[in-house]
This record gives sequence, structure tokens and C-alpha cells, in this order.
Amino acid sequence: MLKQKSSHCWVLLLLVSFCFSGVNVFAQPRANAVKSPEINPDGTVIFRLYAPKAQSVKVTGDFLNPMKPVDMAKKDTIFEIKVGPLTSDTYVYTFNVDGVKMLDPVNPNVVRDGNNIESRLMVPGEWVDKTLSTRDVPHGNLTAVWYDSPVLGMKRRMMIYTPPGYDMTKESYPVLYLLHGGGGDEEAWTSRGRANYILDNLIADGKAKPMIVVMPNGSIGQDAAPNERAKALKPMVGLDMNSMNSGQFEKSLTSDIIPFVEKNYRVITDANHRALAGLSMGGLHVTNTFMANPEMFAYINVMSSGWFIQNKDMYEKGDKRLAEVAPVLKKTVKYLRFTQGGPEDIAYKNGMEMLKVFDKNGIKYEFSETPGGHSWNVWRKDLFNFAPKIF
Amino acid sequence: MLKQKSSHCWVLLLLVSFCFSGVNVFAQPRANAVKSPEINPDGTVIFRLYAPKAQSVKVTGDFLNPMKPVDMAKKDTIFEIKVGPLTSDTYVYTFNVDGVKMLDPVNPNVVRDGNNIESRLMVPGEWVDKTLSTRDVPHGNLTAVWYDSPVLGMKRRMMIYTPPGYDMTKESYPVLYLLHGGGGDEEAWTSRGRANYILDNLIADGKAKPMIVVMPNGSIGQDAAPNERAKALKPMVGLDMNSMNSGQFEKSLTSDIIPFVEKNYRVITDANHRALAGLSMGGLHVTNTFMANPEMFAYINVMSSGWFIQNKDMYEKGDKRLAEVAPVLKKTVKYLRFTQGGPEDIAYKNGMEMLKVFDKNGIKYEFSETPGGHSWNVWRKDLFNFAPKIF
Repeated sequence: MLKQKSSHCWVLLLLVSFCFSGVNVFAQPRANAVKSPEINPDGTVIFRLYAPKAQSVKVTGDFLNPMKPVDMAKKDTIFEIKVGPLTSDTYVYTFNVDGVKMLDPVNPNVVRDGNNIESRLMVPGEWVDKTLSTRDVPHGNLTAVWYDSPVLGMKRRMMIYTPPGYDMTKESYPVLYLLHGGGGDEEAWTSRGRANYILDNLIADGKAKPMIVVMPNGSIGQDAAPNERAKALKPMVGLDMNSMNSGQFEKSLTSDIIPFVEKNYRVITDANHRALAGLSMGGLHVTNTFMANPEMFAYINVMSSGWFIQNKDMYEKGDKRLAEVAPVLKKTVKYLRFTQGGPEDIAYKNGMEMLKVFDKNGIKYEFSETPGGHSWNVWRKDLFNFAPKIF
Repeated sequence: MLKQKSSHCWVLLLLVSFCFSGVNVFAQPRANAVKSPEINPDGTVIFRLYAPKAQSVKVTGDFLNPMKPVDMAKKDTIFEIKVGPLTSDTYVYTFNVDGVKMLDPVNPNVVRDGNNIESRLMVPGEWVDKTLSTRDVPHGNLTAVWYDSPVLGMKRRMMIYTPPGYDMTKESYPVLYLLHGGGGDEEAWTSRGRANYILDNLIADGKAKPMIVVMPNGSIGQDAAPNERAKALKPMVGLDMNSMNSGQFEKSLTSDIIPFVEKNYRVITDANHRALAGLSMGGLHVTNTFMANPEMFAYINVMSSGWFIQNKDMYEKGDKRLAEVAPVLKKTVKYLRFTQGGPEDIAYKNGMEMLKVFDKNGIKYEFSETPGGHSWNVWRKDLFNFAPKIF
């Protein structure tokens, strides 16, 4: 009897504990029992969604080429599809249930680039295991830092990676300024890009020098990522010409951000210890910045970017400015790299056309293509390949 | 003609820019045109979801009491509901579309506590504007820090808030150790709790002393939040008895975490400059920690927690230990506070029963109730009320 009573107490205790956990185990029991994504040893992946009343469920993600929604098959109450085998990488995906876009409700891995919030999938293999994953190696710190931007008239937020050991030495470090694309914010390179883990792993393997990585917010109308933002979010309609073309971000980078970093962190403050890289809109920011400040950076990577071929004015001004600064660039820049995600990259034509202007002005660079288009899968590889070549 | 051609170029340029932004404006045009949530000046809130084929859409969130799903009305292709007026606060909500739980696809504000990922809503008003929002005041840094945990046999991640000015002075600071609840992780207090902004605002208003806030991961089976985790995620089934009852987290706190913080940060290392607070499971961690180390903390807040009333053993051991340590606690602890979210808090009975044991042993404390149950809306207020009383 005592034993029975005691075990009854334990059942109560367990139920109380369930409640305590903040997870209501009685809601959606079948929904939560679904396993998704399931990654098989051969690299195939099964996506599943419990959706008993749905007519149609599709999955879409950057593992699909072309990236258009694919129908999932209904089996009783669950929709399912097997894809792949997929190359080792990190991917994003969403479901579309009768026309409504949604995350995978049983996958706690969610990443964000601007307003695009998606479920994340990591397919094991050499690339993920050695480069993208959180390995058992020393990890740098990742700090959200607010700084004053007189240029943009607001306090703004950026992410700063300091390498393992930064807090334990008196050493000064080189700095890589790493810029995101249009619609993004200061968290894009860590949320979608895994930049901090790529650096941890390269440094642990002796392939890259310990460095600080500064990831500012390149969208000048906002101070910070959505959850951190001071002002009510202005709806992003996909068009941020102001951030792309006004030159204000570039001015803020050299007047607000770099001086802040060089004042508040132990950094080496010459061109040989400054690198600049950015993707898409961030690639335009990079190009504008080093052309306006040709004496500032010894290492540069323009990723998936180029002057708009429709904009003759951009080309004329660019050509004129490159002619002016070519002598300084040749003296300062040790490594200038342009990368594209292959001809399927939407920036490919712009980029190739822009390079002709660099050729015309006798500026040497390295050009490299990684198949994958205008995508994070390419940009992570760009960072992985660039970081070992700098400092 | 030239003018026409030029404007045609601009249209092309705009389209290219759309593509560059990473946002496909042609997908789901009607879905993205929906405004949700819409917050009216009177505090009422309209939720909307574009779901042309759905039979039933419900909304649920912590603004509902009881928190059960409420039907939204279909108007053409959009489901809609108006709720409130709501008191100024930050809330979470999700939609349920024909039995499938989902986020609000047009709301970029997403917060997470453990595996619970929800859309966020902030209703303006005095509480939000003065205390929870990102105000135009100096902001502390928030850093993700990895440390070695020999006790738990892994590298682990924690969040550390350093107050505004920390990097510019040589001053040493007091430290608040702030613990989350069952199922959560090191990001819970910043994602759901807005702890860093609460501190920024209290410090700016001269209501709290500048302090460091250390937010570790109390779930001992994991090293870090989902996206940062080294090991494949073990599915959380709501039950984490090991984190709650093994005493291993408490041991790691005093053997791994506090020594790491006191070695690597400029902190004052005596009881008068150490505070400890935690909610739910974290409240048990707090109680266990100060009872095992009665000389360690001068300021303590146990939020929404208590020994399980079914577990007589817990009460007997607690009573015995309190009798032993009462003299040291009376000498060390300047402020001991127990808080509950009112009788509707699932931890209320446990907590009130536990306090009888504190009474019996003559240990003075303050007890405070904030209506709202076992919820972040209560815990944010607990932090807001506790921080000004310490150091």
C-alpha cells in the first residue's frame, strides 16, 4: 500500500515536472511525435508534417535547384517527402500548407536573414563536421555591441567576434569587417552564415590567424535586428535602394564603426591588419568603401556583387574613380578577390561587367566561382576560402 | 525618348534590386500584404492570417486567460480576430491552421524559450516604453561566452551582460547570476525575458546599480541553445528531471561558472557583490545553491518555485539543511525574496509550503505576488523589482 501510494506520488511529481518544463505535452501529441527532418546515413532527408486536414503540403528550400516548392505525399495524417542525397551543408526550408508558408513545427533550429525566417537542416559530412559545426575546439566570444552613429543619427547594433584567447592575452589583433546583403541585418552572418564557427574551426586547425570579425548592420533605416530594434519596424518590401546607393552606410563604416572598434578593442590599426568583405549589397558597400578609401584595407573580398549593368552612370563614375585610385590600390592591396556563385548567381553579369573596368585600369585581382548561385551556401565557402589568405 | 529609355532602365534596376534583397516579392503577394499584428491606439490588437483554403484558424497566446485557442473569423481569404485592449506588455502568440501550429508569417519578431518558438507582440504603454523596449539610452554588451565545465564534461555556452561603460573603466562590478526554467537554455532570459534591456533601462534611470548579469544554461544534457549546439539535439519531451534533481547544475554553477566569471571579468568577489535569481526549475537551482553555499550570496530571488509538495523527502532534507545553515544565512543574506505569479501559478502551492519550512527555521524573507501565473510576464516584473534592491 505504501509502495503504491509512493508511486502515485511519483506520477504526480512527474506531471508537475512536465508542467514546470514549460512544454505542454498534452497539446498536439501526434504533431510532436513526428520526426522531421530525418537525416539518413546516405544523406537523404525525410521531411514530415502532421497536417490531418490539409489538402496540399509542399516543401521548399535551398537544397532544391531550381528552388521551387515540391509536393509532399499524404500518408494518413502526415505529409512526407524524401529528398536527396544532399551534399554535406547547412540548408534552410519551409513548408507551404494550402498556400500558407510555415516553419517545421518540430524543428527547433530556426535561422533568419532579415525578415526571412526558416527552419534549418545540417547534413553531416566533411564540410559540416569540420567547418560549419560547433566542434570541441576553443570558441571565440560573440558580442552584441551598441555604438553611436553620428552619420546615421542613431545608436546602432553590431556583432563582434573576438577569437579564442582574446580575453586572456594583451595581444592586438587584425580585424575583418564582414558585410551582409540587402534586407539583412547584423545577425545575418552568424545566424545564416555561421561566421563565428567557421572562424573557430579555421583558427583551431591552424588555417587562419586569430582575428576579430566585425559584422555591422548595413540597412541604414534600421538600428538593429527585429527583436532588438528601438523603433517600430518599418515593413521591408524588398527594396532598400537607400542602403544600397546613398553611400551613407559606407560613410558610417569608416567614420563611426572602424574608429569605435579601433578605440575599444585591441586591434592593429594599419591597412595590413584590416580586411573587408561583403556579399551582394554588402559587396557594393565593399567596393564603394575601398574605392573611397584606397589606403585603408590590404585584404578585400567582393562576393556575388557588381555594378548594375543597366546603370551606365555607375560604370562611368566607377571607371573614373578607379583610374584615380589605381596607384594607391596597387600599393595598399595585397589580396583583392571577387567571387560569384557561378553563372546562375543573379549578380554574375553585373560582376563580370564590373571586372572589365578593373581590368581596364590594370588592377590585379583573383576571381573565383563556386557553384550554388546567389546563396549562403556559396558565401559561407567564400568566407572559408578568404579567411586563410588574410593577415 | 531618352527619358523613356532611362526610366525603363530604372524599372529594370529596381527589379534587379528586388532580387538582390533576397526577398522574392512575387511569391505570396497577398500573404505579405496582410498586416499582423496591428496594434491600435486603444491597446486592442488585430491578428490576421492569409489562408485561403483553411477551414479553421485559431490564435493562442499568453495574453489570453485561460490560454486556450480562440477562433478567428474568415473574411474572404483572410482570417482575422480583434483582442484586448491588452495591458502594455510583451506577449507571444501562435496560429493554429486546421490543427497545425505555426508562427505569424508576416511578423519578423520571433522569440524562443527552449523548443517553444513563438511570434512576439509588444503593446506600447508605460511598462513597455520605459522598461522593456530598446530605449535611446546607453546599452550594455551582450556576449555569448563558451567556458569549460569539468563538472558536466563539456564546453558550455552562457550569455553575459556587461553594463554600459564596462569597457571604458577599470572599475570592478557586482554580478547577478540569473537562471531560466525547465526546458530552457542560456538565451531564454534575453529572448523571452529581455533581461539586458530591463537592466539598460533601470541603470539609465538610476534605479539599479551597474552590474554584470550571467545567464548560464541550466539544462545539463545540452551545451547550448539549439542553433549553437555541438551535439545532435536530443528531443526534449518536456521532462528534465536530471537538470532539476541531480544537483549537477548547482555544482557546475559554483565550481565552473562563478570561478570562470571571477577570473575573466572585473568583478567584486564577495557575497555582498553576488546575487542569485532564478525561475521555476531555476528557482530550485537557486534554493539548492544557497543552501549548499550559505556564505556565497547576499541577494537572492526565488521566482515561481518551491519543493514539490508530493516529495516528503525534499521537505525533510530541506528542513534539516536549513536548520544547519540558518546561522550563516542570517549573517550573509541581506535580501531574500520569494515571488509567485499569484495562486494561478502552478508553483504556488509548492512555494507556499516551502516557505513554512523557512518560517520554522526563523529565516526572514520578503514574499511578493504578481498576478499572471507561471509566465514570463511575471518573471520580467520580478527581475525589474529585484534588480533595484541589490548591491
